[in-house]
Parts: sequence; structure tokens; C-alpha cells
Amino acid sequence: MSEADNTPQPSVTDSPPASGAWFDTMPTGDRQFFELAPDRPYVLESGTELQTPQIAYETWGNLDAAGSNAVLVCHALTGDAHAHGDAGPGQPTPGWWNDFIGPGRPLDTDRFFVVCANVLGGCQGSTGPASINPVTGKRWGGDFPVVTIRDVVRSQRALAQHLGIQRWMAVVGGSMGGMQALEWATSYPDRCGSLVIIASTAAASAQQIAWSQVGRQAILDDPAYKGGHYYDAKPGEGPHLGLANARRIAMIHYRSDEEFDRRFDRYSNDAVEPFRMEHRFDVESYLDYQAAKIQWRFDANTYLILNKMMDLHDIGRGRGGVEQALKRVTCPSLFMSVRTDFLYPRHQQIRVVDALKGRVPVEHIDIDSDNGHDGFLTEPEQTGAPMGDFIDKVAKGSIA
Amino acid sequence: MSEADNTPQPSVTDSPPASGAWFDTMPTGDRQFFELAPDRPYVLESGTELQTPQIAYETWGNLDAAGSNAVLVCHALTGDAHAHGDAGPGQPTPGWWNDFIGPGRPLDTDRFFVVCANVLGGCQGSTGPASINPVTGKRWGGDFPVVTIRDVVRSQRALAQHLGIQRWMAVVGGSMGGMQALEWATSYPDRCGSLVIIASTAAASAQQIAWSQVGRQAILDDPAYKGGHYYDAKPGEGPHLGLANARRIAMIHYRSDEEFDRRFDRYSNDAVEPFRMEHRFDVESYLDYQAAKIQWRFDANTYLILNKMMDLHDIGRGRGGVEQALKRVTCPSLFMSVRTDFLYPRHQQIRVVDALKGRVPVEHIDIDSDNGHDGFLTEPEQTGAPMGDFIDKVAKGSIA
Repeated sequence: MSEADNTPQPSVTDSPPASGAWFDTMPTGDRQFFELAPDRPYVLESGTELQTPQIAYETWGNLDAAGSNAVLVCHALTGDAHAHGDAGPGQPTPGWWNDFIGPGRPLDTDRFFVVCANVLGGCQGSTGPASINPVTGKRWGGDFPVVTIRDVVRSQRALAQHLGIQRWMAVVGGSMGGMQALEWATSYPDRCGSLVIIASTAAASAQQIAWSQVGRQAILDDPAYKGGHYYDAKPGEGPHLGLANARRIAMIHYRSDEEFDRRFDRYSNDAVEPFRMEHRFDVESYLDYQAAKIQWRFDANTYLILNKMMDLHDIGRGRGGVEQALKRVTCPSLFMSVRTDFLYPRHQQIRVVDALKGRVPVEHIDIDSDNGHDGFLTEPEQTGAPMGDFIDKVAKGSIA
Repeated sequence: MSEADNTPQPSVTDSPPASGAWFDTMPTGDRQFFELAPDRPYVLESGTELQTPQIAYETWGNLDAAGSNAVLVCHALTGDAHAHGDAGPGQPTPGWWNDFIGPGRPLDTDRFFVVCANVLGGCQGSTGPASINPVTGKRWGGDFPVVTIRDVVRSQRALAQHLGIQRWMAVVGGSMGGMQALEWATSYPDRCGSLVIIASTAAASAQQIAWSQVGRQAILDDPAYKGGHYYDAKPGEGPHLGLANARRIAMIHYRSDEEFDRRFDRYSNDAVEPFRMEHRFDVESYLDYQAAKIQWRFDANTYLILNKMMDLHDIGRGRGGVEQALKRVTCPSLFMSVRTDFLYPRHQQIRVVDALKGRVPVEHIDIDSDNGHDGFLTEPEQTGAPMGDFIDKVAKGSIA
């Protein structure tokens, strides 16, 4: 059997693997690995210790001699280190930001050294719930500790050191990626040369926590979840129903009423006649499809960990509040909002922009898209062009 | 044991009943009953036949000699016929629109004869999934047929006939209640004297269908749902987890980001320390409380039936589309929108208003509330005053 035959494919008709996590028995793909603390316990913000945690990451382009052209791309909830590249062995999906990264693209790999790391607690090569806990010799499962955005950023700081990067030229991200970027500029202002943040927030709001809760609850309520210890389950016997409904819920608040009206309206291509409970409108089939697809590339335990991570995100924790914390930021910053994003509404980005204004060069751009929160992924022209211009100015030192 | 002792109470600490449905072994409360078709099968829009279906309803005030002062109040998803009155035996909750109905209130029971009926497919006395199917001698459970808004309105027309009401002075409702009201004016324009509709739509949108789907899926995925045949389950062993998460999801889109920020922000009164998965922010405790409470007064099967009913709501079905169908409406109409309602957004009400404008007297009012969709329940002053004025004008014949 070739390596390619081992690769999980995002089919939605076959029985999915028990978990969508990557295991080290699978093809490595484009992953590189960095052992975070080979010689000591790695202490999380919670006080919990991880033994020999690793970070999976990918890089594109070359670091210049001065180590001054590095860009960190931070991924969102169901993203991973594979921000750029094709699908292939070990990589069930193509790069999630292919339109933004590459030669001649906004994050121009002919000029910049672009890095993306799977977050701690993730499921695509970084240490997370699907990893073996060296203390017990068993997979962590539901016992994996809570990880915070600050933990993730601190691990990325160690990775930067490892790569010879004293200071990122830019830290870039949307949604949960934007949380990491803002935390970078707050935790390590000397190591963060600029920020590009799309559709993100300085602190998770009550409604964001609420959405997160119902998604997590869908998984926790699934009897196949078994306290997170399902890695030995047969294909198709993992917590698929729970993860599926969590994904359906998320896909509604990732998109928008306006887009759903445009794409789906009240259309139905279902052969079942409409006055039956089983009948599906097209929007339902779309959500079912998205729900089935994620099973192939994402792990329910990581879904819990990263949602809790986002809930705990608060730039102001232990720093006298959000506005006080934002006084630490010293770098030029570009923020973007998507018109129809009701999950990370515009006022959350404006709050940060207002706090930075007058102290650092800061720009804010409205993206006119009906794709809702997912506009940070789906509008390469509207978001990519200003991002490219901004990064270019930063690289040339014409903004500071 | 007194009657009162038999009444389920909305406690959230005790083990809930297997179903929140009302059974005829429970105290009758203020319910009256009307047998819809004692002598023939009752044919639903789907073609399915119901044998001897009944409607539970309540009335307040007195019908005048001419039968001209009757107001029909239509309830929303988890409402019932008990729009006015106290909690008590057989009525686990006080009237859901107490602020709007009563002496001197907008729907003034000193002047008007106010009627509210539990919808067909409901769980508070009207025939629904918890009822005995006379053909099998067993409770319908998950085999209860799909019911449409048109079926409900046709059943209310029979009830009106029974009560001696040839023409409602007004048909009033919010949300799913507004769907019924608009259907009344479309199906039976000669029998509908005026409309008051809050936060509703002429046809369920793709996003509304999507929200409905994820709530239903939560119930269907619960192993305790058992295809809807759980009425013999012990207390606490019904599909509580499923109904609970459906309710949590709904409570998020019933309220608003703005309100949640104001009420909950990132507060937590949880004794569990924050870096644990079990830790709850206050907004989560609020959703848990709402999720627990509904178990005492609502039935999971009815939740499915009524959500599907709303998905199927389309004033234009078989009538050449929404705008064409709205040409049937001949009565004065008042519409209201809630500023922060993202479940039934303003444009849905404006669509109807625009279609009626110039043909019938039509008013539209914006309600400035941060309570989101639930603003139709929670703003008695802002919604009640214009409703009272409008109904008064209708009663005096000074609008037509």
C-alpha cells in the first residue's frame, strides 16, 4: 500500500475514521516538528505540566540573513499548520489560505519567510488530546488539560527562537488566529513587528462563549464521546453525531442570513416529499455535508479544547483589563471586519482599533462580503490586497 | 393528594418528567376543549388523516352580541393556550403574555373577547405527538404527522365557528404566532378584521430553517429519544439532553449579542477554577438553567413538529409566491420589528409591509430593545402601547 493510500480522504459517504486526528503512523506530509521543552516539564497557564510536548509547523520561502522577513500566520479553530500547499498524503485538505500565501501573493513567499504552526491542543501534529501522554503511556483523550491562547503564543515564541527569528516582521490571523496575533503583540511587543487581524476580538464575548458552549455540549452529550476516550473505536463509531451537530451550528454562525438567502433560499432538491419530517431543504443538505466532511480532518477532543481556549481568551486577564493591556502594543496594525459577520461583530474590532489609535499606526478596513465570519477565508481580493499593501509597507520600513 | 400536588413545577433541580407534555390525567387548569372533526377524518395539508383531533384553548372577556369583538392571539413555538392567567394546577407557568392581555391592557378583556388556542401538534392539550392515536390505541410519539401553519389556521377557523365568531376583529401574534396571523389574513381575508404581527416572516428563510434543523438534530441524536417513543420512560430518562441543547441553541438566537454583553459579559460565579473544562461562565449557567426549565413544560416531539411547521411556513406556497399571496390580504395591519432580532431580521417584516403598502392601511414600528427576537415577549410598553392604539382604532372603526 502506498503512502497515498493511507491518507484519510474527505469523503462523506464512507464511514469516517473514529477520529479526524493525525497520528504519527500516518504520512508526515509537509509537517516539521519542534520539541518544545525536551529537558523539562512545560508548564501551562493553568499550572498543569506537559511532558515533551511538540509543535508541528510548516514554512514557505526563506529566512533572510538578518532574520527580519518572517511572517507568522496563526490558524483558526479548525485550521492547522497547512496554510499553504496541496492536499496529499497526510494532508487531507489543501492549504486553508492558499490564496494569501505564495509567490506574488499578499504573503509573498519570494520575499518573506512564512511560518504556520498547529496550535498546542490541536490535532494535526502538535501535542493534543490524540497524543500519547508519556506519563501514562496512553492517549490523553478527554484528560488533556485546558490550553490558553497565551500558552499557544508562548509555544510559538519558543518555535521562533528555534527558527532564528528574534522578531516577526508580521503576525497575521483571522478569528482564533487573530486572538493569537493580538496576544503576540501584547505578550511580546518587542518580538512583534506588525499585526494583521481579521474578524477577531480582544476578549471572547458572552455570545461567543454561548455558541462555543452549545457546540461543546453536542459532543459531550454524544454517548460515543465516552469521556474523550474513543481513539480505539472502529471507523464510524467515534463521536460523529456530536461533532457533526457542533459543526452544523458553527457553519450557521460562520456564514450569514444574507448568504443563505442568496444561495439556498427555500430551495429543495430532496426527493422526499416536503410534508415529511425527513425532508431536507438545500440549506440542511449543505450543513449535513459540512458536518460529514469535518469528521475526516478534525478531532472532537480538540474541538472542545480549542473552543474552551477561545472562551478563555481575554487580552486583559491579569493586566487590568482589555484597554490597559492594549497599551502594551507598540507595532503598526491593520484590522479588518466583515460586514455580515455576526459571530465576531465589527464593534469588537473597533474596540481594539480605538484603543490603539493615536499611539501606533493603525488602519481599519471593512470587507463587503455576505460570507459572514468566514469572510476572513473567502475574500482573497478584498482582504488580500490591503494585507499585501500593508505588509509591503512594513517590509520597506515605510510604516512604523 | 390535592390537584396542586399533581402539577409539574418548573424546578430545575429535581429529575424532570420524561416529557413536558400535558396529559388528560393532569389537572385541566384553564383549558377548554373543542373536538375538531368528531364525525369524519381531519385531513391535513400533507394528506394525512387525523381521527377526532381536539384543540385546547382559553378565552378571556366576553363575546358581544354581534360577535364582533373577538381577538385571536396566536402563540409561538414553546407557548400554549395559557397566554393569560396564573400558574397553578395543570399550568406550570403563568400566562406568557400577561402584560398584554387583561382589564385595561392592550388586549383589554373588559372590551374584547380574547382567545388563544394551543396549536395542533402542540403538547398542552391540543392533539399532538403525546396524544393517543385512536387507530393504534398508543401515543403517536415520533409517528405524529407533520402539521403546517395552514393546518393550524384551518383548525382555528373551525374553533372560531364553534365560538360563534364569523370574523376576528384582530388576529395577533409574534414569531410563529405571526406566521399564523399572516396565514389567517391570506387564507381567510373575509374572516380577519386586522393584523398585529411582531417579529415574524412571510416565509421561513434558509437561516431560520438551519437553526431549526440543528435544534431538531440535537433531539434526534439523543439515544433517549428512541424514535419519539419515550412516554413510558421514567422521570429523568426522556430525551432531556437533546431538548436541553436545542433550547440552549434557541436561547442564543432568541436574545442578542448586545444583551448578553450587558447581562453576562465575561462574568463567572462558578466555584470551579477557570482553567478547567467544567468551568462555567455565567452565560453558560443561564443557558443551562433555561435548558433545564423547559423540560417541565414542553415535549421534545412537539419541538420537532413545530420547528418543521415553521420551516414549511411559506405564505406563497401554491399561490404564485409571497408577493402574489399577500395580494389576498385586505385588512389594516400593524407590523413590529425588534432592533436586535437577528433570527427574524427586520427585512423580513419590511418585505410584507412593502407588499401591503398602498393597498391596505399598514403601519410599521421599530422596537428599540436589546432582547433580540424575544423582544416580542419582553417589551410590553414599547409593543403594547402601539398595539393597544391600533386595536382601539380597529374597534372604533376609525381605521379600515
